[in-house]
Amino acid sequence: MVYKPTEYLPYDFANRRHIGPSPQEMARMLEVVGAPDLEALIDDTLPEAIRQKEPLDFGRPMSEREVLEHMRRTADKNRVLTSLIGQGYHGTVTPPAIQRNILENPAWYTAYTPYQPEISQGRLEALLNFQTMVSDLTGLEIANASLLDEATACAEAMTMAQRVSKSKAKAFFVDRDCHPQNIAVMKTRAAPLGIEVIVGNPAKMDASAVFGAIFQYPGTYGHVHDFTDLLSALHETGGIGIMSADPLALTLLKEPGAMGADIAVGSTQRFGVPEGYGGPHAAYMACRDALKRAMPGRIVGVSVDSHGHRAYRLSLQTREQHIRREKATSNVCTAQALLAVMASMYAVFHGPEGLRAIAQRIHRKTARLARGLEEAGFRVDPQAFFDTITVDVGPLQAAVMKSAVDEGINLRQVGETRVGISMHERCRPDTIEAVWRAFGIVKEDRDFRPDYRFPEEMLRRTEYLTHPIFHMNRAETEMMRYMRRLADRDLALDRAMIPLGSCTMKLNSAAEMMPVSWREFSLLHPFAPADQALGYRELIDDLSAKLCDITGYDAISMQPNSGAQGEYAGLLTIAAFHRARGEAHRNICLIPMSAHGTNPASAQMVGWKVVPVQSAANGDIDLEDFRTKAEKHAEQLAGCMITYPSTHGVFEETVTEVTRIVHDHGGQVYIDGANMNAMVGLSRPGDLGGDVSHLNLHKTFCIPHGGGGPGMGPIGVKEHLIPHLPGHEITGGGEGAVSAAPYGSPSLLPISWAYCLMMGGEGLTQATRVAILNANYIARRLEGAFEVLYKGPSGRVAHECIIDVRPFEQSAGVTVEDIAKRLIDCGFHAPTMSWPVAGTLMVEPTESETMAELDRFCDAMLAIRAEIAEIEKGDMDAENNPLKNAPHTVEDLVSDWDRPYSRNQGCFPPGAFRVDKYWPPVNRVDNVYGDRHLVCTCPPMEDYAEAAE
Amino acid sequence: MVYKPTEYLPYDFANRRHIGPSPQEMARMLEVVGAPDLEALIDDTLPEAIRQKEPLDFGRPMSEREVLEHMRRTADKNRVLTSLIGQGYHGTVTPPAIQRNILENPAWYTAYTPYQPEISQGRLEALLNFQTMVSDLTGLEIANASLLDEATACAEAMTMAQRVSKSKAKAFFVDRDCHPQNIAVMKTRAAPLGIEVIVGNPAKMDASAVFGAIFQYPGTYGHVHDFTDLLSALHETGGIGIMSADPLALTLLKEPGAMGADIAVGSTQRFGVPEGYGGPHAAYMACRDALKRAMPGRIVGVSVDSHGHRAYRLSLQTREQHIRREKATSNVCTAQALLAVMASMYAVFHGPEGLRAIAQRIHRKTARLARGLEEAGFRVDPQAFFDTITVDVGPLQAAVMKSAVDEGINLRQVGETRVGISMHERCRPDTIEAVWRAFGIVKEDRDFRPDYRFPEEMLRRTEYLTHPIFHMNRAETEMMRYMRRLADRDLALDRAMIPLGSCTMKLNSAAEMMPVSWREFSLLHPFAPADQALGYRELIDDLSAKLCDITGYDAISMQPNSGAQGEYAGLLTIAAFHRARGEAHRNICLIPMSAHGTNPASAQMVGWKVVPVQSAANGDIDLEDFRTKAEKHAEQLAGCMITYPSTHGVFEETVTEVTRIVHDHGGQVYIDGANMNAMVGLSRPGDLGGDVSHLNLHKTFCIPHGGGGPGMGPIGVKEHLIPHLPGHEITGGGEGAVSAAPYGSPSLLPISWAYCLMMGGEGLTQATRVAILNANYIARRLEGAFEVLYKGPSGRVAHECIIDVRPFEQSAGVTVEDIAKRLIDCGFHAPTMSWPVAGTLMVEPTESETMAELDRFCDAMLAIRAEIAEIEKGDMDAENNPLKNAPHTVEDLVSDWDRPYSRNQGCFPPGAFRVDKYWPPVNRVDNVYGDRHLVCTCPPMEDYAEAAE
Repeated sequence: MVYKPTEYLPYDFANRRHIGPSPQEMARMLEVVGAPDLEALIDDTLPEAIRQKEPLDFGRPMSEREVLEHMRRTADKNRVLTSLIGQGYHGTVTPPAIQRNILENPAWYTAYTPYQPEISQGRLEALLNFQTMVSDLTGLEIANASLLDEATACAEAMTMAQRVSKSKAKAFFVDRDCHPQNIAVMKTRAAPLGIEVIVGNPAKMDASAVFGAIFQYPGTYGHVHDFTDLLSALHETGGIGIMSADPLALTLLKEPGAMGADIAVGSTQRFGVPEGYGGPHAAYMACRDALKRAMPGRIVGVSVDSHGHRAYRLSLQTREQHIRREKATSNVCTAQALLAVMASMYAVFHGPEGLRAIAQRIHRKTARLARGLEEAGFRVDPQAFFDTITVDVGPLQAAVMKSAVDEGINLRQVGETRVGISMHERCRPDTIEAVWRAFGIVKEDRDFRPDYRFPEEMLRRTEYLTHPIFHMNRAETEMMRYMRRLADRDLALDRAMIPLGSCTMKLNSAAEMMPVSWREFSLLHPFAPADQALGYRELIDDLSAKLCDITGYDAISMQPNSGAQGEYAGLLTIAAFHRARGEAHRNICLIPMSAHGTNPASAQMVGWKVVPVQSAANGDIDLEDFRTKAEKHAEQLAGCMITYPSTHGVFEETVTEVTRIVHDHGGQVYIDGANMNAMVGLSRPGDLGGDVSHLNLHKTFCIPHGGGGPGMGPIGVKEHLIPHLPGHEITGGGEGAVSAAPYGSPSLLPISWAYCLMMGGEGLTQATRVAILNANYIARRLEGAFEVLYKGPSGRVAHECIIDVRPFEQSAGVTVEDIAKRLIDCGFHAPTMSWPVAGTLMVEPTESETMAELDRFCDAMLAIRAEIAEIEKGDMDAENNPLKNAPHTVEDLVSDWDRPYSRNQGCFPPGAFRVDKYWPPVNRVDNVYGDRHLVCTCPPMEDYAEAAE
Repeated sequence: MVYKPTEYLPYDFANRRHIGPSPQEMARMLEVVGAPDLEALIDDTLPEAIRQKEPLDFGRPMSEREVLEHMRRTADKNRVLTSLIGQGYHGTVTPPAIQRNILENPAWYTAYTPYQPEISQGRLEALLNFQTMVSDLTGLEIANASLLDEATACAEAMTMAQRVSKSKAKAFFVDRDCHPQNIAVMKTRAAPLGIEVIVGNPAKMDASAVFGAIFQYPGTYGHVHDFTDLLSALHETGGIGIMSADPLALTLLKEPGAMGADIAVGSTQRFGVPEGYGGPHAAYMACRDALKRAMPGRIVGVSVDSHGHRAYRLSLQTREQHIRREKATSNVCTAQALLAVMASMYAVFHGPEGLRAIAQRIHRKTARLARGLEEAGFRVDPQAFFDTITVDVGPLQAAVMKSAVDEGINLRQVGETRVGISMHERCRPDTIEAVWRAFGIVKEDRDFRPDYRFPEEMLRRTEYLTHPIFHMNRAETEMMRYMRRLADRDLALDRAMIPLGSCTMKLNSAAEMMPVSWREFSLLHPFAPADQALGYRELIDDLSAKLCDITGYDAISMQPNSGAQGEYAGLLTIAAFHRARGEAHRNICLIPMSAHGTNPASAQMVGWKVVPVQSAANGDIDLEDFRTKAEKHAEQLAGCMITYPSTHGVFEETVTEVTRIVHDHGGQVYIDGANMNAMVGLSRPGDLGGDVSHLNLHKTFCIPHGGGGPGMGPIGVKEHLIPHLPGHEITGGGEGAVSAAPYGSPSLLPISWAYCLMMGGEGLTQATRVAILNANYIARRLEGAFEVLYKGPSGRVAHECIIDVRPFEQSAGVTVEDIAKRLIDCGFHAPTMSWPVAGTLMVEPTESETMAELDRFCDAMLAIRAEIAEIEKGDMDAENNPLKNAPHTVEDLVSDWDRPYSRNQGCFPPGAFRVDKYWPPVNRVDNVYGDRHLVCTCPPMEDYAEAAE
């Protein structure tokens, strides 16, 4: 035959699906950046010394179809039993409409954290609904927009109590009926901060000896206690009372606020979010109004826009680590936005009647189960319960648990002689019968007479979810349209590039996302027996091995469920290492001034002192300053935290010198993995002298940002640190736990695994190269119009670039915010503002953006520069101009237009799509107003009516 | 305990998810319509005589979770083997991005047929891409926007050939190598039209004896022939040459246009649309430009809007059945829009290089497979092939097929001694090895030397998919954004009510939709052995039983895959019944004037003569006229076709009299099931005297409209007609086949089944009641402002109402179109225009719309009426007013505004959302221009550039 097979590989995920620029585009881009080929550009950019020696090799990359089949086979190795283990994780029914329209909808899952409120009104509303729900259910005035998991929420509450307590005591009381993982994480958190944790029976608590206390409600073994008196006792000596409460139970039971709790925490997992073998789910925190400024995490608030219309935004951001660094309220920066949105929609979907009915059904099933056991002669404890009981089975514990497994049921092992049973939304009469059979009772669940098993005085007396949003028509048609309307208000990755520096907003491909919804991954209880999770085992092992290859480390812990959590876990690991060597006194941490604020905040959490290191003029670490400080603190040197490539977007050649200095002085090196997207396949932190790093799987490894979480921050360590990795009561090993679940948020891991499998070693490496090409392309295209700060010695940037817009404040009165908001008019999420350098924009395009999209962005930036030039020349008014008035809305168009520029110029700057333009629903949001008039729950309906007028 | 359990049932799908109005809303609505309760309203509306006696009872309705678990268990009864059966159905890889963002996205699947082009530009573009793809691949000038399946497309091509042929011959030649189901459906179609079908060897065709001929390419047994000479021979006597061609093969092989074919048809299933046990998939048809006005089906064309911007629309609608009735080109009204969109996106995703590479891979695998068989001594036929071969195995046919099944492979039984093997996109080397093992050959597929197995002169010489849309960057990021942009241009059920009369745009719930994507339903070959499809068997049997209960019929045929196809199949069944009784001469069909145009078009297709019956003044059938005509034609009376409740939206009390008259004169009664949504649970066509009805599962039973297909039109019949139902060569039984696959489009059936299971008998009945309530609520709210035509004797309408807007043409120069377009400004799809009465609007709200949405619609209609009043009073210009200028776009807002009303009035009439407003991407589309300047493929890129300016 005469014709040749085409060269085109239709299933090349790496080069044709994940990586944005086509080969042809790349050739043109290389011309623009002035590099003969991609390798040459990389040689320019990455110093030879820091390059890795062997290419990554994961064998033949899989196609999308192959990876889905591989995932299917892996999933089939997990066995989905009905888990009645409880302990904070419960079966729940995800309404299909929410699964389809939120969890599986890129408009929701590809969105970024709502720092730019004008393009985030949809998810801000959903999160405000979440806060309102939490506030109502707990009976406390203010709630945040979610935390990582219940255990870390407990720990955050403990440290918050320490901050606000008026008691001088150093100890913190923990109810022995708290979930074991909550206790474990609080203990881990307490130790470096010098907090003594007293675990005990609340009845015997000495309130005057503690600055605060936490009680589980209902208790982990099912008890339903009224903590009113204990909370009063705490208040008498200025102590803070915390309740860790199941929000579903609160639809029936007296709420924490009514008992006098100061803070409430808990998990909203059972509000429609699958267990996922441990996560992700949204934990919550609520507190009394007086304590709000001490509350960690993001808080959505209500403000107004420049036209006085209501607008939502993140409030009280000055508490956060990116502002306050080591003085921050907490190192928390990720929330669980996507899961909080799901939980809030579950509440909107069911409303108070629905939630109450679900809770009642669960309670009544538990009561029927208990009665059946009691009638058969078993001793059931407690007498008053909501959904959880334990049964004394003496020496037959193992036999009963095995018998239950044979019936398809997982029970909880409690002590030596008891088993625990927690009923949940997925339980049916046949679940009850199966449990009975496990106990040798053969009978049908037919005796439906109501039988409530808690005292009347524990009944909730107050209303909740009274806001109209929880009373909208719950027809699916209406719900579907509500979710669509909110989604349409936001600008996510499914519509435009999100060029956020340091955030690596790359493609989250559909093939990667699909297995997350599969029941074999989503319906596993985190404490299910290991032999039911062999698929997860295989996934975690193989992904860990690949991440070790990529980073040059020897082991990975999947436990940290956010980047900040990873930092914290990594530093704990280092601290434990020092301790084990008898050098527990090492507590000085060198951190460059340019570091992300999370670094010092994390160091503070492990009890270290932060010694800042200067930057040199070129943005690099000032090596002399570093050396001097390392020497000065040599005795106490715990280690350093550096970011590579630097937060200035440069591959510093001195990195190996930096790590050598630290090691020479007995310290350990933490390399922040936030910029790993510039390294994969080209350079390995483990080879540069790093002892530990966290990896933001939600940046480099394709887990979507979900509108502000979930995240996933596993850590890699060198061999000597392996014994000091976080452990877990379930899996054992290592040091204390940092997360509630042993593997953090494992139901996200199929995403990163699928990514690695489809990219292969060379594909991952090529992605890194193209990420660098894309950044250099932008830097070059903007050259002349803007100054690009901090290039490497050969004039290249790494995977991101910092654009200096400070001069325009002087020359035209234009701020970085004006430019950011004007970019919204062009249809873009703004780059990272004022970080790491105030008054600049940091752009990270990632490898997934095509040349066309990069050009659209550069065109927009150049057009903005031209507008600035007009102001500079006096051709445009300094106050009434498209930059100051940005973003422009449809309301602007409709209104009388008395501006010195045309509607067209205002609304359709270069870059903006004409037909498919994104319209922000509000004008520029007033931040100051929002913080002054703090409203963090849904405003009353009259306000809506007003806003509509 | 003191408190009572809540009455609220959280999992009541029928009343809280599917049915729109809440109980509270219903109470208020009943007040407005002036009925004490729902039952009383129904008593007013439905004559006692026609009510069914026993309530529907399907046992306890399932919750969403229960139905999904039930579906899971059913799905697990299907066994997914690798089917190499071919015969027009092939394994294909659906790109996950397309699955997620099209098939599983309500913005695409809930859209209606794009009759209102201003709100349909997204899917019109996708369908234009489809047409361009088909036109390019076949090498013919013009293509339509899809047909139901390849077999019906063959039949449509045959009748089209008959219409346009210049030959006087009455016979039609069919290549014996056509797929058997294509031959069967053509035979079915030919018989009543008096076409003699000659099936034979093309080499022996007498071209002068036929008006046309059809050839399969490649042949069903794999042959690759050049039909150039045969097509020339046909042309010599004025005949029409048709090729039924595999579009994937056309990426490598000489195309039909290059051989001189006049028409090409085929299936685009293997372009990323799963086999689905037979459907739905999009068939295609293309033809020479000269024949375009004779082409059936929808054709998307390019036109301009009122500002001269390019806009897409449906062209040449005057050919269609709703205009030409029994003189129509065809009775086709549904296309397979959603599937055509998927196929077109597959082509955009892969581009010509990708499609060619996929085809080459398949061909090379087939060649390797053949070589291995030949080397082992088997005789492989044909010598020249693309993807299909047959192997002579003598008496071992059954043994080899069984052996293949043991290897997980389905082969095709061919004759007595051969087996057929068709390779496809899902085949891998291990597939080849498994087939070899079935033949007793143990070897590895390692010999990758290229080995092309068709002659060089069969190689395609022309380019295809040259338009830039097929060369856009194929990164998933770009594709995802393209699909989102198109979706955003359209207004579908996920954003607003679509109050289309007779189209029943109700909720398509997420739970109903989910199983459609499951591999156990989607990956089955339609001709897979029955024991691999036991889940489907159970589904079809149970759904059929429920549909019999609902309709009062005795059996259901699932074969018709659209409503029109159902009508046709039903009439064929009646004709066969008459024939079996020796009354083949009966060929007169009484059809009321008000009938949907499909009715006469279908009657014409079975060779009947249509005798129209007058309407009485109140819109009912004129009983006297009916009786007179029935008597007059008693000898020839085949039957009647009536719609119930009538297309005027009234339950005619005379229906039983009408059916009696027909029966008395020896005819059979066809009751059109289009309005079944007003009957379910309340009245049964089988009880009213109907002998056969079709059911639009895509109306009453929740299959989404998909932007203009898929549809599903099973028929129910009384016992005496059961022997005459459509049969199928695969399943045997009955008369000739009407569809390619035995059960039509079975992968849609889980939707209707889930709906029935979750609603239960009472839920379905309540849905009917509320559909009637909603329609009466609208009628009552618009009373005074508009006249509502055709109420029943008690002043009630059924499930839809006709709003008379004819007076306004006289009083204000306002047409029905002006009102329809003004409704777009309010954020609504217009109701059905000018049908069944010219100059009116027919509104069908369905039960799924909430009171709030109904009110929004009524507010919009009343505001429009007020605008008309202003024109009537002379307060508003008769030409330059919001109605005439509707719909308003962002372009209007941005441009200079020289109108006598404000921008705000133009763009935000009552009903329109303010923040979440839907903006049509174009102004009013010029229909005349489009038909005069017919362009039905993607315009060249320069046009895009112009339009962008």
